[in-house]
Amino acid sequence: MLKLEAERISSSGRLVMWLRAEDRNGKKREIGGLCVRGSVVGGGGVRVINGRKVNGVVVGENKAAASYLEREGAEGKALNAFKLGRFVEERFVYRQTFVIRSYEIGPDKTSTMETLMNLLQETALNHVMSSGLASDGFGATHEMSLRKLIWVVTRVNIQVDKYSSWGDVVEIDTWVAASGKNGMRRDWIIRDYSTKKTLTRATSNWVIMHRETRRLSKIPEQVREEVMPFYLDRYVIFEAEDDRTIDKLNDETAENIRSGLAPRWNDMDVNQHVNNVKYIGWILESVPMKVLEEYHLTSMTLEYRRECRQSHLLESLTTMKTSIAEDTDSDNSALRSTHLLRLQENKSEIVRARAQWCIKEQA
Amino acid sequence: MLKLEAERISSSGRLVMWLRAEDRNGKKREIGGLCVRGSVVGGGGVRVINGRKVNGVVVGENKAAASYLEREGAEGKALNAFKLGRFVEERFVYRQTFVIRSYEIGPDKTSTMETLMNLLQETALNHVMSSGLASDGFGATHEMSLRKLIWVVTRVNIQVDKYSSWGDVVEIDTWVAASGKNGMRRDWIIRDYSTKKTLTRATSNWVIMHRETRRLSKIPEQVREEVMPFYLDRYVIFEAEDDRTIDKLNDETAENIRSGLAPRWNDMDVNQHVNNVKYIGWILESVPMKVLEEYHLTSMTLEYRRECRQSHLLESLTTMKTSIAEDTDSDNSALRSTHLLRLQENKSEIVRARAQWCIKEQA
Repeated sequence: MLKLEAERISSSGRLVMWLRAEDRNGKKREIGGLCVRGSVVGGGGVRVINGRKVNGVVVGENKAAASYLEREGAEGKALNAFKLGRFVEERFVYRQTFVIRSYEIGPDKTSTMETLMNLLQETALNHVMSSGLASDGFGATHEMSLRKLIWVVTRVNIQVDKYSSWGDVVEIDTWVAASGKNGMRRDWIIRDYSTKKTLTRATSNWVIMHRETRRLSKIPEQVREEVMPFYLDRYVIFEAEDDRTIDKLNDETAENIRSGLAPRWNDMDVNQHVNNVKYIGWILESVPMKVLEEYHLTSMTLEYRRECRQSHLLESLTTMKTSIAEDTDSDNSALRSTHLLRLQENKSEIVRARAQWCIKEQA
Repeated sequence: MLKLEAERISSSGRLVMWLRAEDRNGKKREIGGLCVRGSVVGGGGVRVINGRKVNGVVVGENKAAASYLEREGAEGKALNAFKLGRFVEERFVYRQTFVIRSYEIGPDKTSTMETLMNLLQETALNHVMSSGLASDGFGATHEMSLRKLIWVVTRVNIQVDKYSSWGDVVEIDTWVAASGKNGMRRDWIIRDYSTKKTLTRATSNWVIMHRETRRLSKIPEQVREEVMPFYLDRYVIFEAEDDRTIDKLNDETAENIRSGLAPRWNDMDVNQHVNNVKYIGWILESVPMKVLEEYHLTSMTLEYRRECRQSHLLESLTTMKTSIAEDTDSDNSALRSTHLLRLQENKSEIVRARAQWCIKEQA
């Protein structure tokens, strides 16, 4: 039996539709999903869905994953118990539980954007490791390693409804899907473990690059065959929500510029490049202190344009816009910002970013 | 039955003696410990111990802790299961298990010194929280909070035998003891969870400060009564090993000076001060790149002299010494270094530090 179900996942009225199959024993299985903008009628219950078709239905069992499950020994299981990670939903989704640690919170006692991105990265890597596809432990599959290929992220969009505090337990779901002809999409949902309330949604796009030439590559057929069985066509963020190009700031359009930002030794990843998450810290360097103190980051989109190595000096550019709702007067409860990280020596772009901010509630 | 047992815990020939009591059922309980330098005879087994007295024997049950255990509800237990933390050894020792995460390793694929210090901090805070003593969640007891008192660290010494890799499981033991008349000592051991091999030992000294006046305070009697039941007089690092004053570097004696280091918003802790662990990153900023690339930090002592706030600009000073064994020629496998972090504007000291380095094995 096929059932179309709808679930409200954000206060802004976004809807998610799940296409669920029910087997003879009444056990449900998700076989497709779509996130749409819809209207909400009544007090919390979702009634109206715009009539979009659920696309890209994936049917059948996840055989590759099931076969790995058989190979997985007792040792792997013990380790997964500590990692608090496991496959769920027919192994299309990898779920990991985390306790927010004391050093992962900021001066306002809640987890930082860097922490969230770090946890997403950790879940993604453990997903690949647990899938049995991993070769080098850093996301590349066996067929990719044979060809010296690595995944590189081109875009991340993260939307935070609520930041967690020290000691809070969160669970993160992640899965992958095709993105165009030569890309992969990876989505995440962070939920509060106790209430199951969605705290954060994120999506990212990845392409394949040659480790030595640093040139982009098509996805080889053998790699596609490795990863395809894991693809789940479910969206947490409707793509059209955030497909606008990010404006490129320059010396004239930037309100604040911070120069001389130098990557530290520990900012490097194992490939001797700056870890993607570290850019957030530099972006925030040109954000006015008043904004950092009084506002939460509620959404951030990062477009990665070029790699950065340790010897590079960076400049951080920021422009703040006063209000999202520009037609209403004096609404300072929400801000938008645009950012650019560029090399200091030749001004070439490293990362473009866009963010939304919401005023903190007075504690 | 009382038994004196010796255990070798480092390749440098340090010995630890434990005084263990055995009850009628043959169950062992540690009631005192001492770390000494001794000589090792034979292939791995420890035979000779210099005849030092085991001091400060603690006997009897830990009643305060046991009473907390009774109060602890099901919810607390569930949370502790995720934190992977619990009391052991008659509740004198708090033990927490961690999996090293992908973002906690450095460019050489092993955990960084900052990561180790972060994990020590997390274990210490969870120790206080789980003890039932915590008031504000950041280490202060109820009686301390009533008096607006907080703990501040004055000195940390950490000795690393081996750095862990991503996915490794480590267990950290921590306990507290008296230190002089108005101080507290906190020690930690990090072990490999599988092999139980000691990876890292650390000790620290703490004093009490008034949260508003920022003046040091004696330990009030009521606070002493709160924490005393948890005191365990066991050493992981023999005090005399590292009691030399750290030389204060200046413009003449420093080989390398890096100026203009600016704390970021996220470097602040909940008290709007720079988190103790963050200083390590700035110290490493004036260490030559060749040393960072080719050597491991095997030991570090930090003396915290003054608080640092966000508006401050810092300078990092470093002097490297070529060899530990200065009597042997051309031994570059070990280095020593001295460091100073100071305010740029008036040169006042923030942190003095001393470190030892060992050349990395070629992978």
